[in-house]
Amino acid sequence: MIEHEYTFRVMYPDTDKMGTVHHSNYAKYYETARWELFRNIGISYRSIEEAGYLLPVASIKMKYLKTTFYDEQLTIKTTLKALEGSVLLYFTYKIFNEQKVLINEGETELAFVNSNDWQLCDAPDFVINAIDNYNF
Amino acid sequence: MIEHEYTFRVMYPDTDKMGTVHHSNYAKYYETARWELFRNIGISYRSIEEAGYLLPVASIKMKYLKTTFYDEQLTIKTTLKALEGSVLLYFTYKIFNEQKVLINEGETELAFVNSNDWQLCDAPDFVINAIDNYNF
Amino acid sequence: MIEHEYTFRVMYPDTDKMGTVHHSNYAKYYETARWELFRNIGISYRSIEEAGYLLPVASIKMKYLKTTFYDEQLTIKTTLKALEGSVLLYFTYKIFNEQKVLINEGETELAFVNSNDWQLCDAPDFVINAIDNYNF
Amino acid sequence: MIEHEYTFRVMYPDTDKMGTVHHSNYAKYYETARWELFRNIGISYRSIEEAGYLLPVASIKMKYLKTTFYDEQLTIKTTLKALEGSVLLYFTYKIFNEQKVLINEGETELAFVNSNDWQLCDAPDFVINAIDNYNF
Repeated sequence: MIEHEYTFRVMYPDTDKMGTVHHSNYAKYYETARWELFRNIGISYRSIEEAGYLLPVASIKMKYLKTTFYDEQLTIKTTLKALEGSVLLYFTYKIFNEQKVLINEGETELAFVNSNDWQLCDAPDFVINAIDNYNF
Repeated sequence: MIEHEYTFRVMYPDTDKMGTVHHSNYAKYYETARWELFRNIGISYRSIEEAGYLLPVASIKMKYLKTTFYDEQLTIKTTLKALEGSVLLYFTYKIFNEQKVLINEGETELAFVNSNDWQLCDAPDFVINAIDNYNF
Repeated sequence: MIEHEYTFRVMYPDTDKMGTVHHSNYAKYYETARWELFRNIGISYRSIEEAGYLLPVASIKMKYLKTTFYDEQLTIKTTLKALEGSVLLYFTYKIFNEQKVLINEGETELAFVNSNDWQLCDAPDFVINAIDNYNF
Repeated sequence: MIEHEYTFRVMYPDTDKMGTVHHSNYAKYYETARWELFRNIGISYRSIEEAGYLLPVASIKMKYLKTTFYDEQLTIKTTLKALEGSVLLYFTYKIFNEQKVLINEGETELAFVNSNDWQLCDAPDFVINAIDNYNF
């Protein structure tokens, strides 16, 4: 299990006419947060694609607990659950506002595929090793 | 239970560098599809907001089964499960590509709130009546 | 000179906390409108990419004259100025609301490039012919 | 004239199937960059809205000189030209990639309006003062 915190601001175009953040944008926040976790253990998601792999999202769940607003600083606590069978990555996310109140939580499942044929495949060794090294 | 089908094209900005649709956009497709279902039973979502209510998303789940591509015509089959306790609306979605293959499925839970204070509230009568009338 | 009209609705995620459409979205509206003009003369933009070309935007100008709102039906009148030197496409756009009031106008310049090396290149013959045929 | 630099990364959902950044997103980059310039002189854009004003974009021009890619760090050099007649703000932008190459340039014109009626109005004193103080 690997954890990471990522802090960012709510941008104006993230908002909608309700005055809060459009719910679809949390999926984008999760995405940035999980690749910052990866960067923190020495792997950029870019390098995974450059090595011939893609990591499309297989499923996502999001719960919206409280509203948030333009310009607020939010912190995502991202957790990478261990690789399952070397093909799938599970992440969970908890988003906190400036008052440390949990406003959103969710999870995503991602699958390694070859970028040329989109067939499911094992994670490349450099990813497996980076995760293993970090866990010790 | 009310069902509706909505067909649309994948737009260029919906795609990402994987060459397929960015996963966050399905939440937007669901949103348009559910309000088209509402329009079909005589209520525009706009009229709900004009009456002093908002319908923020409380939770969403999405499963990505197959990729899709720019300019493809997709069809969403949306189902409104009956109002639960008059505060929550449950919708389910199934998205099919031009070959009638199921590529994505999901569900959303929405809550009626007053637009002035964001407090949970009962659905307004004109919404309840429209749903009831359509079911008979 | 080729003209085309495209009508669409303002979607909820197009709005921002001002209650109107976020200004960046007009660039997306222009994009859809110009490829619908192309579809109308027998060419899908998808077929241009499949033939090994891309049409990135080289420049854009947009003027915002009046606000618009969620769920409003807007009509874009798109004009393709003739190919200039066979490399550049010029389009102009005028967006009208339901009261036929001009709310936005703009222009874009697009350049043909080879998709493998992004080098500027002449438009493919099937595009030139479709434009020529339509003009007579 | 006030200048400011803002550095950020290209996010995955900013890309499109061309493999580069969708051209509409530069308008969002400009927006974040100009409010960071304002934050730097002691005013958050949020505080302008809280004081009863909006700053909608009246016009935008963007030129795309070179492509950029996912995960690249870009730097925007933003310049605020002096207030013109106390109603309009002019900003210019230059975006540089990691190799210090200019990849995009543009300008925006924004107008102060009252948030209750969207009528053009003078900039509030605290904005005028902050700009004047910074210039001396």
